[in-house]
Amino acid sequence: MSINLDELVDRFGGQLIGDGSIEVSGFAPLDKAGSAHITFLTNPRLRHEVGNCEAAALIISPKDNQLVGHLFKGARIVTRNPYAYFAHAAQLFQSLKTVPPVPGIHPSAVIDPAAKIAASATIGPFVTVESGVEIGENCLIEAGCFIGRNAKIGAGCHFFPRVVFLPECQIGERGVLRPGAVIGCEGFGFANEDGVWIKIPQTGRVIIGNDVQIGANTTIDRGALSDTIIENGVKLDNQIQIGHNCHIGENSAMAGCVGVAGSAIFGKRCTVGGAAMIGGHLSIADGVHITAASVVQSSVTEPGVYSGFYPLAKHADWEKTAVLTRKLGSMRDRIRELEKTIHSLTKTKK
Amino acid sequence: MSINLDELVDRFGGQLIGDGSIEVSGFAPLDKAGSAHITFLTNPRLRHEVGNCEAAALIISPKDNQLVGHLFKGARIVTRNPYAYFAHAAQLFQSLKTVPPVPGIHPSAVIDPAAKIAASATIGPFVTVESGVEIGENCLIEAGCFIGRNAKIGAGCHFFPRVVFLPECQIGERGVLRPGAVIGCEGFGFANEDGVWIKIPQTGRVIIGNDVQIGANTTIDRGALSDTIIENGVKLDNQIQIGHNCHIGENSAMAGCVGVAGSAIFGKRCTVGGAAMIGGHLSIADGVHITAASVVQSSVTEPGVYSGFYPLAKHADWEKTAVLTRKLGSMRDRIRELEKTIHSLTKTKK
Amino acid sequence: MSINLDELVDRFGGQLIGDGSIEVSGFAPLDKAGSAHITFLTNPRLRHEVGNCEAAALIISPKDNQLVGHLFKGARIVTRNPYAYFAHAAQLFQSLKTVPPVPGIHPSAVIDPAAKIAASATIGPFVTVESGVEIGENCLIEAGCFIGRNAKIGAGCHFFPRVVFLPECQIGERGVLRPGAVIGCEGFGFANEDGVWIKIPQTGRVIIGNDVQIGANTTIDRGALSDTIIENGVKLDNQIQIGHNCHIGENSAMAGCVGVAGSAIFGKRCTVGGAAMIGGHLSIADGVHITAASVVQSSVTEPGVYSGFYPLAKHADWEKTAVLTRKLGSMRDRIRELEKTIHSLTKTKK
Repeated sequence: MSINLDELVDRFGGQLIGDGSIEVSGFAPLDKAGSAHITFLTNPRLRHEVGNCEAAALIISPKDNQLVGHLFKGARIVTRNPYAYFAHAAQLFQSLKTVPPVPGIHPSAVIDPAAKIAASATIGPFVTVESGVEIGENCLIEAGCFIGRNAKIGAGCHFFPRVVFLPECQIGERGVLRPGAVIGCEGFGFANEDGVWIKIPQTGRVIIGNDVQIGANTTIDRGALSDTIIENGVKLDNQIQIGHNCHIGENSAMAGCVGVAGSAIFGKRCTVGGAAMIGGHLSIADGVHITAASVVQSSVTEPGVYSGFYPLAKHADWEKTAVLTRKLGSMRDRIRELEKTIHSLTKTKK
Repeated sequence: MSINLDELVDRFGGQLIGDGSIEVSGFAPLDKAGSAHITFLTNPRLRHEVGNCEAAALIISPKDNQLVGHLFKGARIVTRNPYAYFAHAAQLFQSLKTVPPVPGIHPSAVIDPAAKIAASATIGPFVTVESGVEIGENCLIEAGCFIGRNAKIGAGCHFFPRVVFLPECQIGERGVLRPGAVIGCEGFGFANEDGVWIKIPQTGRVIIGNDVQIGANTTIDRGALSDTIIENGVKLDNQIQIGHNCHIGENSAMAGCVGVAGSAIFGKRCTVGGAAMIGGHLSIADGVHITAASVVQSSVTEPGVYSGFYPLAKHADWEKTAVLTRKLGSMRDRIRELEKTIHSLTKTKK
Repeated sequence: MSINLDELVDRFGGQLIGDGSIEVSGFAPLDKAGSAHITFLTNPRLRHEVGNCEAAALIISPKDNQLVGHLFKGARIVTRNPYAYFAHAAQLFQSLKTVPPVPGIHPSAVIDPAAKIAASATIGPFVTVESGVEIGENCLIEAGCFIGRNAKIGAGCHFFPRVVFLPECQIGERGVLRPGAVIGCEGFGFANEDGVWIKIPQTGRVIIGNDVQIGANTTIDRGALSDTIIENGVKLDNQIQIGHNCHIGENSAMAGCVGVAGSAIFGKRCTVGGAAMIGGHLSIADGVHITAASVVQSSVTEPGVYSGFYPLAKHADWEKTAVLTRKLGSMRDRIRELEKTIHSLTKTKK
């Protein structure tokens, strides 16, 4: 299946330079694209490839079009954000290739009679749906998912196989939950009584907005007394842990293996790099970017990029610097001592 | 459903000041509680809220009662540990609101005839129970759980959906395993033969005590030759990895994303903060507390609080300190050089 | 069931010293072994135990045999690599004790008619197999696994319960996937358009070689345009995350909780310690060893051992060094200042 460039421009905008009737069937990188492909230029270091590119069409920014557009043999779509344009168009190509699921409930699924499932939804094998659940139009709930009592799932959600969505939790429209994700498990709340841990019931929920994506084996705890909140447009990668009563602001994104301790509050449009660790009971302002493997143990009140991890070295070198890192106090004292002595030697006031 | 204060004091102790016939239906925070609620004071910074609190009853320590108890309009329960009191009472309220599961085995479950399941146990849809398994009284095994050959599960355990409990492993009474937990997977044991990894069969088990809680998607490896041991009262949060032949002492607790490498031995009443990494073949004494994101690569022989992670900074500042961290050796040498020169200048013995 | 030493030597080589008709039934450590056991010596610190060891047979290196072999009462098998010899022999003992699975498809499994499953394969309860799937000879696919459209699984693979193997992905022969592993989930690819994340379809696959082991709840993302590659003999422990378009070289091994960001390329025979974090779009040479909890954010071009994590200390001490770590710049400046002053005092050229 293919699309012509006029249709792409009708759907996604951009200025077409060349023949709108040209048909393209999908994307390929600049250096691999053939005459049936469309490609895009976003990396300045690849500008030199434009001249030899065999693609039928190129998505390009106005600036790059000025610089190298004329070197391209095929048609061009000039747009402010070629990468986003690529994303939209690639989604369109994928939708053409994807066979839509057949609505209906697999005979093996166990559905409580008191659950409300839209006629246009698809429920796979070995799915369990408890009482009071609502599943919206065009949802796809794949094999082995568990949907707990009174959970609400908005229209157009896609749960991959083996998602666990626990009682009372809610998600808005167009949510994507990847395999093994667990939403609404009990938070880690205990009171210590003479050395023994007494469990505190976790009676809150997880409330998730629209257009949220949650990665494979990611876990989000339900709130203790109030709720855990994931706002619209949040994207979470695989194996992330979000503690009870966290609040993740609109369009924030976190890469794999991030841990967020309980009651951490994130602003909007934040990003967190892989395996970063965020402490509990702190606030992160809008537009804060934490780089991978960094540790955040107090609130971050200003937008910006923040880092904190020990630099890598050959093991023998690291062993030396690690010892000295432990001795920074004595190094500082020796500097002070030297300064005093120098001061008395020079008899000058600082 | 509600409970009166006399009943709470009968069950959980404490000194009642006020009318014992007052009925309360659940907990709310000091600032949100209404006339049907009971609340508690544990955070000194919230003492000022006691005067305006609308709750029917307040759980308070003797000291806080001295300070601000008289400002509270309702009844008071004075007790040494208000937070633990809250935990016990909240469990009671939850039990009143929870519909107990109906004992029995869901028709879709696949149960080996040679398995022994107590009549009071509840087995959900799509559960697999292999031969030789024993499941105790009042257990709740939710949808999609797998219980392997000869596994033993004590009375009153609750396995949330999709727990995998592998052959020969054992857990005591009142255990809680959250969704996606995997108990008894093969440890990571290989012998290297000319660059190729030869697998070492993992023939030990995982033996878990009473009152243990294990978080969502947490994994505990079975022992290689001997067993992996989790003692009574241990609490593990989500996405924790425990390697083969580890031994976790009584009432120790670990927060989310902690990794414990093989053959690590933990004492009693230890705590480990989120995403801390514990090396293998080491011992941690009783009462050791490792803070979040810290790395432990040698044994810790004294109780106390231990930390070790690189402090966060604005990225540009971190880049500078990271470079200097690598140069600590030369900084130390320059200090030595200065000390020598000063010494010769001053002609004084240190 | 037992084996005599002649048979072991026939299968695995080594020089037998003693009676080849001696029967042994399994392994035990030097200090616990009895007259039915065979044991091995690999740790020099255990040489003193050889004299009192009760085992019927001992696997020992030529060097240790020179040193302490004569002290052992039983028979000896002298071999270059006793640990690998132990691994091979232990696999043999385990195979004798293991009841082979009965080939066939459990009646509860949901198998698409267009799937090809070898007659010698075993498919457990609640397994879903979609159209176009191929499952090879002697595979064991345990309860609750999901095998997506057109996936190819080579002969002799063992999928533990609840593995998710997504559409179009492939694995070679003798692969072992532990419970909860997720292969082929969509990578974390988004284009940012005015603060909103636009998803980039992930159309690549995961291609896995022969003799690969993948741990419990480990996740491997499918490629974006091209494929994610895991070469022959790779061993991955539990809770590892491998991002889209990564390439892991032959016989490399990673311990639990490691995170590898997208498009990272690993050479052959690398090892990565637990909870290490590997950044994206970088290359790791053959034979690189990253120690546990280290952070790798740029390419490593030479083989060797690399480390980078903040050393642990008592919390109070760590707090001091953490503050000074942030002040390394000013410490460096003060040293410079001192050097200048000294220089002018001594009037000597450096």
